[in-house]
Amino acid sequence: MHKLYIGIELEGSSVSSALVDAEGKIIAERRDQPSEDLVAQLIEIIKAFRAQAENQVVAVGIGLPGLINLKTGRIELSPNFQHLTMVSLQDEVLRATRLPVVVDNDANMAAYGEWLYGIAKGFNSLIYITIGTGIGAGIILGGQMWRGSSGFAGEFGHTTVDVDGNECTCGNTGCLETVASGPNIVRRVQQRLYRDRTSSLSRLLIPRDQKMSPEDVIRAALSGDELTRVVLERTGSYIGIALGNLINLLNPELVVFGGKMMAVGEILLRPIIEETRLRSFAPSFAECRIVLSSLKDRAGVLGAAMLARDSLLA
Amino acid sequence: MHKLYIGIELEGSSVSSALVDAEGKIIAERRDQPSEDLVAQLIEIIKAFRAQAENQVVAVGIGLPGLINLKTGRIELSPNFQHLTMVSLQDEVLRATRLPVVVDNDANMAAYGEWLYGIAKGFNSLIYITIGTGIGAGIILGGQMWRGSSGFAGEFGHTTVDVDGNECTCGNTGCLETVASGPNIVRRVQQRLYRDRTSSLSRLLIPRDQKMSPEDVIRAALSGDELTRVVLERTGSYIGIALGNLINLLNPELVVFGGKMMAVGEILLRPIIEETRLRSFAPSFAECRIVLSSLKDRAGVLGAAMLARDSLLA
Repeated sequence: MHKLYIGIELEGSSVSSALVDAEGKIIAERRDQPSEDLVAQLIEIIKAFRAQAENQVVAVGIGLPGLINLKTGRIELSPNFQHLTMVSLQDEVLRATRLPVVVDNDANMAAYGEWLYGIAKGFNSLIYITIGTGIGAGIILGGQMWRGSSGFAGEFGHTTVDVDGNECTCGNTGCLETVASGPNIVRRVQQRLYRDRTSSLSRLLIPRDQKMSPEDVIRAALSGDELTRVVLERTGSYIGIALGNLINLLNPELVVFGGKMMAVGEILLRPIIEETRLRSFAPSFAECRIVLSSLKDRAGVLGAAMLARDSLLA
Repeated sequence: MHKLYIGIELEGSSVSSALVDAEGKIIAERRDQPSEDLVAQLIEIIKAFRAQAENQVVAVGIGLPGLINLKTGRIELSPNFQHLTMVSLQDEVLRATRLPVVVDNDANMAAYGEWLYGIAKGFNSLIYITIGTGIGAGIILGGQMWRGSSGFAGEFGHTTVDVDGNECTCGNTGCLETVASGPNIVRRVQQRLYRDRTSSLSRLLIPRDQKMSPEDVIRAALSGDELTRVVLERTGSYIGIALGNLINLLNPELVVFGGKMMAVGEILLRPIIEETRLRSFAPSFAECRIVLSSLKDRAGVLGAAMLARDSLLA
């Protein structure tokens, strides 16, 4: 009998999942819209994979954004999944499936995936940063994942980049997330579209009466649209302010950028690197590689499955 | 024969040193003004302690602000000790004294001291932050000191707190250090003194034609002077912005504030805590104690001596 693992990643707009073998090979994968009852949906996904895998599944890993208490397993705070707050996903899924379940922050899961099988393989210290519906980080220092004393570490999206900026869902003002997350990039593009009277490719790509999505912005930028590129350039600068702080504080060997918005690739990565260079110590910047995720949207599900595997061994 | 250790801390305005036994007891200590030739001065201090200790000294630890390359032992960058840059203090002192020498960042040394014998004893994750001529941090996570992949970690003073702020010695603009270090607190108090036409205790304490020192500011604040207290209140807010970021990112159990400017105690600590509370996640803030150093100006020399001891064992 092969041992198989299920990795699941909850993102603001999708539920990604995969069936993974013990060597990190993805055997099957799926992507669903999040349903009203997320717990029931997760249990359904797990059951479907188990049926497919003839009961060879031995553990499940689930990654989601938010603060997950290491001591209690509870989700203390998850702005994008408010109804899961204070729920112990771990207990509920275990009760329904009788499978061991590991729940962790989504960025930690993706960091783990990239570290084991992606671009971060072999590095001793690295930060994985996800730019998606939210912004978070997974931190690996000295060959160990640092989750914080209670499991709350990695809230890179809640670095203050504008002291008197917009209010954030976390209660602070001017967090990186208030300008650089997917929905806030969309908001900023929309504000410019209304202001900007010059012709713009984004007007053709995104009709004014239609609801704009992060995918629209990504598509427009990749098609060469000037307006969205200007917004993304500024977004990269904001991220670079926060990354400069982080590199000065932690001096990591590697920073990996993933998450939905990084589908624009260099369009966002280049201004991030440029601003980080301006804002960090030259020797610390010189020692740090800043790259795009190699596993892309599979980093999270793969990391989640492998963390389930390695938690069983531990 | 007892084994004894020398700990030395270079600060912008003083050279502190101590002779310490293997149990962390300080046997003798001294404080000197930094001389023109610091390397010669350090060698002289070591020789004096050795004469006093009848050659029982077995190792020396030296802490100083700046980026010290873990791989080469070289000081890559030390804005307050420019002439030491690219010098290997370790080699020079070893050559002159034939004693094993450990050189590390001053905040790391103080963190180590507080962790072994001070208020941080028994904690698993803590950040020691020094507010002096410069601002730096020593980071201990999961029971391990994190120095960064090249030894450059802990540059908390170079967190951007004002994107378009003053130019910093590091090349960035708006670093915490440009407003909250000792010399910059003095600068801000002086600017207010010239502007402010109302009577102020600080005018009496600090004559206008005289050069103001950080000690003058500390004395005025402790005497109840309103003007310096207002400046320190704002200073605490700046530090709290950067500390909010750090707590969101690292979720430590404990943050210890030391360094010369913390002689004002609660006058600075209270606004730091207040701003940090506003800017960090409630659960992360709730899990973190923020306190004053208990070893005060002995944290650095004690930590330096004990790091010399423990490096010999390793």
